Amino acid sequence: MSEQPAYRFAVNVTPKPGILDPQGRAVEKSLPHLGIAGVSGVRVGRRVELTVRAVDVAAARGVVDRLASELLSNPLMELYDVEALG
Amino acid sequence: MSEQPAYRFAVNVTPKPGILDPQGRAVEKSLPHLGIAGVSGVRVGRRVELTVRAVDVAAARGVVDRLASELLSNPLMELYDVEALG
Repeated sequence: MSEQPAYRFAVNVTPKPGILDPQGRAVEKSLPHLGIAGVSGVRVGRRVELTVRAVDVAAARGVVDRLASELLSNPLMELYDVEALG
Repeated sequence: MSEQPAYRFAVNVTPKPGILDPQGRAVEKSLPHLGIAGVSGVRVGRRVELTVRAVDVAAARGVVDRLASELLSNPLMELYDVEALG
């Protein structure tokens, strides 16, 4: 059996709008100490990159979607999107 | 004085190749429990989205680069890239 093709993806997980983001607030509060002005709306999330072997890109994306919704994000508080890489 | 235009960016921070990534290993180890096969090379990083007001997009990107290298990433262990959004 020949090996299935490999696809690389990124899953970007961000806090839903309206959900408190203490890490984002912490970044905003540290900006004056760095002498940086004009920055707002900081939201801190996660980025997970991974490789999936599957029969085709649609099947691979299906695996990534399942992983993103069941393991990598909390659907109550976070949104995710899947990005195909390289 | 009129307000400067606003630009939205994402900063993607990922562990450098060769640097241990315990979160990525944890994800890989939990895959069999979910009945998911064919996934490898999991790397867990951060994604920070932010808005910058500046005279033009080049100046805004300069602010983001400084923020990314001085506050959002650890240059010894992590790589970052800046992505223009919307």
